[in-house]
Amino acid sequence: MAEDSLANLNERLLRFARERDWEQFHSPKNLVMALAGECGELLEHFQWLSEERSAALDAEKKREVGREMADILIYLVRLSQRLDLDLLAAANEKIALNERRYPVHQVRGDARRAGEYED
Amino acid sequence: MAEDSLANLNERLLRFARERDWEQFHSPKNLVMALAGECGELLEHFQWLSEERSAALDAEKKREVGREMADILIYLVRLSQRLDLDLLAAANEKIALNERRYPVHQVRGDARRAGEYED
Amino acid sequence: MAEDSLANLNERLLRFARERDWEQFHSPKNLVMALAGECGELLEHFQWLSEERSAALDAEKKREVGREMADILIYLVRLSQRLDLDLLAAANEKIALNERRYPVHQVRGDARRAGEYED
Amino acid sequence: MAEDSLANLNERLLRFARERDWEQFHSPKNLVMALAGECGELLEHFQWLSEERSAALDAEKKREVGREMADILIYLVRLSQRLDLDLLAAANEKIALNERRYPVHQVRGDARRAGEYED
Repeated sequence: MAEDSLANLNERLLRFARERDWEQFHSPKNLVMALAGECGELLEHFQWLSEERSAALDAEKKREVGREMADILIYLVRLSQRLDLDLLAAANEKIALNERRYPVHQVRGDARRAGEYED
Repeated sequence: MAEDSLANLNERLLRFARERDWEQFHSPKNLVMALAGECGELLEHFQWLSEERSAALDAEKKREVGREMADILIYLVRLSQRLDLDLLAAANEKIALNERRYPVHQVRGDARRAGEYED
Repeated sequence: MAEDSLANLNERLLRFARERDWEQFHSPKNLVMALAGECGELLEHFQWLSEERSAALDAEKKREVGREMADILIYLVRLSQRLDLDLLAAANEKIALNERRYPVHQVRGDARRAGEYED
Repeated sequence: MAEDSLANLNERLLRFARERDWEQFHSPKNLVMALAGECGELLEHFQWLSEERSAALDAEKKREVGREMADILIYLVRLSQRLDLDLLAAANEKIALNERRYPVHQVRGDARRAGEYED
């Protein structure tokens, strides 16, 4: 288990919070806000870029974006720990559901369906 | 590599998008918006709950919350693939940085520092 | 018309953008991202506060929060201008709808209904 | 005062909440989450649209977008009431600041500066 990337991350973050006695601030409600706050920072990096330029970030910008994405993953893993929820299982179930919902031969290249990808 | 949870997830999502010819919609800019949209749905589950109740979700609510978190992880992994960015390495670097920034003996139980956790 | 607060704000913002030739960046898609980015900043001010403390901000914090809220209003007004959409009429229609949906005698003090306030 | 659009909106919303005894749920922290949740819904309308198409919504989509924007304005006004904060004054101060910061002759048509518009 501890060989796995997300399991490792979770253990490291839990130890980090416990050593600092910060678990008291990490209610699910607060963690959800923090997660969404980080998404706001990520948005700010992309808001004035064209779609094309968003796919061609320079090295410095990419590093900054990577840090925001790291923060999002960190809070997501912390939240799953606080809720005692298996994040990876949830993701795999969701993908299986999407695979059934959007059969290849029906939705190929269809923007409207892509628009429903996340529903 | 493919034994790892995030690497597996990435491969599965990439195949899903390619088979449906949906990569054309997955510009980083669009994926960032989709990711943030999912965070909005997550917020809605928690906005009227007290911090206490947010830590004691019933089974049905927990399942719904798990699905929103799955969507966030899915878009985060898709985005890292499109940006050719190692999400796990970014997270581990960020944690190492936080460990240096917030030494245990200086910040123990300090809410203000917890407030800077994500900076 | 120009006596009204939102109409005035709209005119001032439109002039600001035009004088700087910034309208070219203000596609509705981009403005929506900018608006959501500002919400992220607002969240960050509140994420570690208890509900009680969130209602008792000190003067400095309140000024900062006011600036984030100003940014949100600014982008909201810009967006309504770009979409040629009457923001105030939309708000009044929405309130009228909520008044019909949630009759006082049925929902008084009911948290679940308050939870549906925004649907 | 009551002739003004935002002041009117504020009074109507305050009466709405008081009649239903919903003020108890409207802590600033909760209202900020609700506001950000609505921004998430707004994002979802735009996430797969090109910038061009985002400027050419059909009537039905525009109505839906208008309703999300109404929700954002509603929560923004409620929040300003709970914080006893003059939203309109804050917006006008922010614009005045931006006018000084970005003199027309220095920033005309400059995307980078537009990118700093909201800072």
